[in-house]
Amino acid sequence: VGTGLKVPGTMSRIPLAKRMENMSGNVIREILKLTQQSQVISFAGGLPSPETFPAEKLADITERIIKDNSKNNVLQYGTTEGYMPLREYIAQWVIERGVKANTEEVIILSGSQQGIDLACTAFLNPGDCMLVERPTYLSVLQILKMHQITPVHLSSDEYGVDPQALKEAIAKYNPRVLYLVPTFRNPSGESIALHRRQEIVEIAKKNNLLIIEDDPYGLLRYSGQAIPVMKGLDDEGNVLYLGSFSKIVSPGLRVGYAVGRPEILRPMVIVKQGADVHTSNLTQCIVSTFCREGNLPSHIESICKLYKVKRDYMLSMLDKYFPKKAVWTHPEGGLFIWVSLPGDIDTNKLLPKAVDKGVAFIPGTPFFADGGGNNCMRLNFSCASKEEIEKGIKSLAEVIAEAL
Amino acid sequence: VGTGLKVPGTMSRIPLAKRMENMSGNVIREILKLTQQSQVISFAGGLPSPETFPAEKLADITERIIKDNSKNNVLQYGTTEGYMPLREYIAQWVIERGVKANTEEVIILSGSQQGIDLACTAFLNPGDCMLVERPTYLSVLQILKMHQITPVHLSSDEYGVDPQALKEAIAKYNPRVLYLVPTFRNPSGESIALHRRQEIVEIAKKNNLLIIEDDPYGLLRYSGQAIPVMKGLDDEGNVLYLGSFSKIVSPGLRVGYAVGRPEILRPMVIVKQGADVHTSNLTQCIVSTFCREGNLPSHIESICKLYKVKRDYMLSMLDKYFPKKAVWTHPEGGLFIWVSLPGDIDTNKLLPKAVDKGVAFIPGTPFFADGGGNNCMRLNFSCASKEEIEKGIKSLAEVIAEAL
Repeated sequence: VGTGLKVPGTMSRIPLAKRMENMSGNVIREILKLTQQSQVISFAGGLPSPETFPAEKLADITERIIKDNSKNNVLQYGTTEGYMPLREYIAQWVIERGVKANTEEVIILSGSQQGIDLACTAFLNPGDCMLVERPTYLSVLQILKMHQITPVHLSSDEYGVDPQALKEAIAKYNPRVLYLVPTFRNPSGESIALHRRQEIVEIAKKNNLLIIEDDPYGLLRYSGQAIPVMKGLDDEGNVLYLGSFSKIVSPGLRVGYAVGRPEILRPMVIVKQGADVHTSNLTQCIVSTFCREGNLPSHIESICKLYKVKRDYMLSMLDKYFPKKAVWTHPEGGLFIWVSLPGDIDTNKLLPKAVDKGVAFIPGTPFFADGGGNNCMRLNFSCASKEEIEKGIKSLAEVIAEAL
Repeated sequence: VGTGLKVPGTMSRIPLAKRMENMSGNVIREILKLTQQSQVISFAGGLPSPETFPAEKLADITERIIKDNSKNNVLQYGTTEGYMPLREYIAQWVIERGVKANTEEVIILSGSQQGIDLACTAFLNPGDCMLVERPTYLSVLQILKMHQITPVHLSSDEYGVDPQALKEAIAKYNPRVLYLVPTFRNPSGESIALHRRQEIVEIAKKNNLLIIEDDPYGLLRYSGQAIPVMKGLDDEGNVLYLGSFSKIVSPGLRVGYAVGRPEILRPMVIVKQGADVHTSNLTQCIVSTFCREGNLPSHIESICKLYKVKRDYMLSMLDKYFPKKAVWTHPEGGLFIWVSLPGDIDTNKLLPKAVDKGVAFIPGTPFFADGGGNNCMRLNFSCASKEEIEKGIKSLAEVIAEAL
């Protein structure tokens, strides 16, 4: 029968689908709405810094593209698989990450998150489970809830997901899919070590497990050595690789991509035909032209330079202001630092007090489907200025001190 | 367990979700791929004519928008509900169609088809049914199949859906949703008469039925009097209205919208958060600026002028070349003419022969979930030139004559 909402003077009952029971809005997007309305310093979102948007170049490119519409057809309907020149570029580009793929093994998405949703529709039934890290990307937990898929958390050690825990979960739950953000994980910023990536891919091979490798942050490395992506270690097609231009060009364009074997991509394309027909040709062509004109390497380098300073500054401010009993991650890249406060503090209760003091963060609990994270918070360092970072961390430390 | 595809040298078995059993690609998109590869005259798609794309204006607008990025934030993440100035514009604009809505009752979609998919997720469970016209938009049948929702066809008379058939289907199936394209229906081009719209809305009210009013073609009228949209006749919030900029600005931008009561839109927004986070800010802002700078009325007028000529020309060519026993619709607007050939002809078998002769159409059967339409074809008149229309209809008539 589903749940219903009764609003006076309207339809007496609007039944919702069963899957919508207990669904609420994405906590980050709700907090973002809140912070956008006021002068709050936000460490909450995963927003790139607007300084990094190559606005002048994109304006120039876009004007040329639309004027050339008769040739490139960007204003017309396109194929669901995506704009061919961009697919070709990506197939070449991912070689640097250790991935061999032909053009047919690349499709374009309306942001990489769409790939998770499409894969759930294509490969999983209600009642199935999906293996995820602990903690994991909170939007994935929301997508799973919508699909009536049960997340099963896997524990990690310093090298990443514990292979023993993975094997046990496979034996116990017979899962089809493992979702990972192996590089600069959301929320913790940590990465899975190379030898561990190899082990996980081997286990996936033996167990016909599909690995969704979500990699929106992998190119944002500020220190340490690059690690090959898991897709590059995959010789039997167990890995579906998801990439994004949101953090390296612009999230407002909504362009991401998936790399995988045709038998993995084809059902996703069929689902996408119904979902949104295809991703905007214009935004695909903008990204394609930006990339093909050789802008990406120097642009990513300049973003990394900027974010390195912000990361280092936030880490130093945490050292300076946060209580000695708090611990936090020291990520080599990405957008986030994960803080664990002394155990009896509840960051959900801390948040409204912090917002009152003019600073926002994401509490830890939405990153766990099995409880936990009450004393944790995710801090984003990419969007605030150095001044805001100092002011925000200081205010946050005061709120924490009051709670201790 | 689901179905699997075995490809040599790859994962031994990639299980698909149950809902993917018997799913194949959208027939139109597959035929489009075919026709794009050759010199075929295509009456198959629902493509707007590229002549109608306001490329110069969009290029100018877009350059200004991106350069002004620091103010309008189009390159940053946006809200799932959509770009506020566009929502405000639409709320004002739909008054002309008889719809009263505030800004909160408008959300932006990545094309109007996304609205159908989101509504299925938000309001229907697998195993539910949805009432649809007969024939109906074939992509809706594909979306329903994906959602494991059973379409129930309703018969029509000259005024549109038969109210008696609607009442009987309600009694028999206890449905939650009725999907209609009341104006210039896809595939037939016919519209539901005003008195019939009122009757249907009344029946929906009494039965807590949600009507999805899909209206991608309503503003493309070439003759006859405008009919108020069903949303304008809806005083209790039973109608979810879906609109699109694909046919009046550009489909490559992927911008559509939904108008409905907040309690209808809110669950759809929650689903959209997971599906694609939000529609491209850039394409939303382009459409918004194009509209707000007053371009829409004269632009739609020029499109209607162009398409009227094409419609009239295709009708006259059908008169000239098609067999006397064939009948076809005479739509007052939209993009399509629906042809019924003498009963023993199978248009599915006709299609490859027609493509060999250099002309493509969509056979009738994919518009019916319950069988039927074997002797029918949908012809699109918006995209071909007059010369192509004559040549294509003549070739098609020859193929038909051979089959008779």
